[in-house]
Amino acid sequence: MTTTSQIPVRLDFDAHAARFSRAMNQLDHAATTELDRVEFDPRMRELVRIRASQLNGCAYCIDMHTKDARAVGETEQRLYALPAWRETPYFTARERAALAFTESVTLLAQGHVPQEDYDAVAAEFGPDEIAALVSLIVAINAWNAIAVATRAWEPGSYQP
Amino acid sequence: MTTTSQIPVRLDFDAHAARFSRAMNQLDHAATTELDRVEFDPRMRELVRIRASQLNGCAYCIDMHTKDARAVGETEQRLYALPAWRETPYFTARERAALAFTESVTLLAQGHVPQEDYDAVAAEFGPDEIAALVSLIVAINAWNAIAVATRAWEPGSYQP
Amino acid sequence: MTTTSQIPVRLDFDAHAARFSRAMNQLDHAATTELDRVEFDPRMRELVRIRASQLNGCAYCIDMHTKDARAVGETEQRLYALPAWRETPYFTARERAALAFTESVTLLAQGHVPQEDYDAVAAEFGPDEIAALVSLIVAINAWNAIAVATRAWEPGSYQP
Amino acid sequence: MTTTSQIPVRLDFDAHAARFSRAMNQLDHAATTELDRVEFDPRMRELVRIRASQLNGCAYCIDMHTKDARAVGETEQRLYALPAWRETPYFTARERAALAFTESVTLLAQGHVPQEDYDAVAAEFGPDEIAALVSLIVAINAWNAIAVATRAWEPGSYQP
Amino acid sequence: MTTTSQIPVRLDFDAHAARFSRAMNQLDHAATTELDRVEFDPRMRELVRIRASQLNGCAYCIDMHTKDARAVGETEQRLYALPAWRETPYFTARERAALAFTESVTLLAQGHVPQEDYDAVAAEFGPDEIAALVSLIVAINAWNAIAVATRAWEPGSYQP
Amino acid sequence: MTTTSQIPVRLDFDAHAARFSRAMNQLDHAATTELDRVEFDPRMRELVRIRASQLNGCAYCIDMHTKDARAVGETEQRLYALPAWRETPYFTARERAALAFTESVTLLAQGHVPQEDYDAVAAEFGPDEIAALVSLIVAINAWNAIAVATRAWEPGSYQP
Repeated sequence: MTTTSQIPVRLDFDAHAARFSRAMNQLDHAATTELDRVEFDPRMRELVRIRASQLNGCAYCIDMHTKDARAVGETEQRLYALPAWRETPYFTARERAALAFTESVTLLAQGHVPQEDYDAVAAEFGPDEIAALVSLIVAINAWNAIAVATRAWEPGSYQP
Repeated sequence: MTTTSQIPVRLDFDAHAARFSRAMNQLDHAATTELDRVEFDPRMRELVRIRASQLNGCAYCIDMHTKDARAVGETEQRLYALPAWRETPYFTARERAALAFTESVTLLAQGHVPQEDYDAVAAEFGPDEIAALVSLIVAINAWNAIAVATRAWEPGSYQP
Repeated sequence: MTTTSQIPVRLDFDAHAARFSRAMNQLDHAATTELDRVEFDPRMRELVRIRASQLNGCAYCIDMHTKDARAVGETEQRLYALPAWRETPYFTARERAALAFTESVTLLAQGHVPQEDYDAVAAEFGPDEIAALVSLIVAINAWNAIAVATRAWEPGSYQP
Repeated sequence: MTTTSQIPVRLDFDAHAARFSRAMNQLDHAATTELDRVEFDPRMRELVRIRASQLNGCAYCIDMHTKDARAVGETEQRLYALPAWRETPYFTARERAALAFTESVTLLAQGHVPQEDYDAVAAEFGPDEIAALVSLIVAINAWNAIAVATRAWEPGSYQP
Repeated sequence: MTTTSQIPVRLDFDAHAARFSRAMNQLDHAATTELDRVEFDPRMRELVRIRASQLNGCAYCIDMHTKDARAVGETEQRLYALPAWRETPYFTARERAALAFTESVTLLAQGHVPQEDYDAVAAEFGPDEIAALVSLIVAINAWNAIAVATRAWEPGSYQP
Repeated sequence: MTTTSQIPVRLDFDAHAARFSRAMNQLDHAATTELDRVEFDPRMRELVRIRASQLNGCAYCIDMHTKDARAVGETEQRLYALPAWRETPYFTARERAALAFTESVTLLAQGHVPQEDYDAVAAEFGPDEIAALVSLIVAINAWNAIAVATRAWEPGSYQP
């Protein structure tokens, strides 16, 4: 992808916090282990990661996870529709529940995950699945925060 | 595209307001005429339409204009990046100015298009271009409002 | 009205987008045709136009439509009360439904016109009336957007 | 004014908090004394009261203070323009400074009256005038809070 | 308390609005009289004052009322928990109702104290108690507004 | 601390996501290692943790980290002042920069950590310190998200 504007790196996070950077990779691996254990749909994982990254404004993460989503068979039109998923008929009830919960946890400071949001996700997922989904949301939000705060990684540079 | 959730039509707007519906088509044609006159880049037109539709939650419009964007040569990765365009290096200075102004006018009630937002677009575009861009933004916002208020058109049904 | 502060014109929209400007007049005429067909109350039309213009910060439009409202028999006290209409006993159930829907569609990006808002307007108005009301709201929002983005028309200059 | 909807009284505040109610009248009188001492323009006092009441949704207060404003010579068009005063050329630099500060103090929890807002009012008013203006804003906000929380007083019932 | 940053006084409010300042003290005394009459719990009074002051950003008021709260037997951990009181099990049903109503009235411009908020406080308190609580909330908000707008009183200087 | 209201556990996260739970402890340990390496002040660490937890509404975390803060010598009055730290003179320039950056990263979705916020923290801290601070903010936000989404841990149960 040709880049035509400059989004300068603020801080080389991996260099300046190498120990924490490694722990982030381990956290990510642990989230994957939880997701694998409950056989969480690979396409749904990427939808969650992309939607959180859209809310948090993480350009690197959107680029990475749309490439990964396409690699596991996701369609272009579902990815384009994601910012307006509530008004879109393409997503299953489980996908809609996962996306709603992703927004609620990602916008933590705005609503503190009210009881009705938890009830909605619990109507579609069992306890182990919710725990895996929380792990996934926490991990992608952590990556988003590092990427957006430091602009450490150049959007578009990811290769699957 | 397989639809898996129901987004029921609320009102068949074209049937119940046929006269206004025709006038909307004429308004859209007039916007295109203004854009053609200033040779406004076709890809940039679609970026503006998609970004407004993302903010307004118009699933039908996003589906339509991402298809149209791809048809005029837009790339997948630029379309995926659009929700985080400010943090993305893929867009030119003119595209960034057009997108920022699109957000300002679309979020009209929040900020009333402050002077600095107008100054920013005027730094990249001449008066005729701004007038054409305003026409474009007004037209897509009008379509968004009808589509979202009435859910008249099924997302995914558009064929270029 | 004496003007004591300067709100400079940013762009002479009618001159720089003459074709779109004419289409806007036709759109407005089409909305009026829809409203006439369902015999939509003239005072209620102005309440809708003024409330949208208040939310969008369109000083020219407020000035114009309060003059027009007074000309069709609206009272001063109802117009003053409009920013707090929900807490005011002056408005009928139909006027309150129209005003609530006007706010929901005008603040499109904030809420995407949720189902309960549509249900509330449908409890007071039939499909043709809603279609005419949507036409009215779309038209005034389009005027608001042009006026606020370009500051093309001087507030107070309108003469009924 | 004919009332067509019911806004039921929640609590007869004057009866249930008679002592505090009297103290409110004394506070209001004290604000007037401060305003008189600095010869604060009577029309500007009402603009401040009406704008705060619009933000706070106090229908009774808007009705009362628009009647009082008209009684001291304020025009209809300036009162209609008040929700969009920033985009309106009718108001003097001092009126604009007073209105901006009114909004900043009324929306206290949103911005905590940042330094630039204080600097802006201090560019137009001296210390005694600002102290009188603060007294005015505090008094009308207190009335607004009682009226909106308890719906104690029927909008439209005020007679100058 | 050692002060390490400067929060300069903007205006010596007591000197420039002496008359209003005295009326504020009388208003505060009247609120106390109402609260005493209904035997409103002293610790709950301070919780209300501190929570309003947190929302309004009044550092002087937080410092003063946490000192007063500790003096009437409030615990450290309940005071620390106050910004997240909804998620905290330390508070009684009456305290929770009082805190929710405090937030609703303090954030007046955001929600205009909707009916469900009034119903919630009325489920726990009688009319005289609500009137006293409104008096308390109005008084602390008035103090907050003066303190934050003028930065008149140095945070930490209060001695119980 | 006596609990008087029920905040029921939604999900025993440690049991249902044991693998991720262990990785969270390792992440937290890694953050501490980064902070120790740059000799980040222990009291400032707790201020950051408490402020993020206040924004995110994490009652368990506030309780835990105010106890830890007191254990490392923090004063009651500074902790009470934290919700209004900007208006409070108790905090050093470095503490103020750390708190402002904490808010910016915690409210990630609202502002995407704009350049001026990064510049402000970089005026007080070097690259290694910022990387450690980012690690700290990311870790506490991750804990907050798990605790608030699942209500897994009872507020007040922590013992230092």
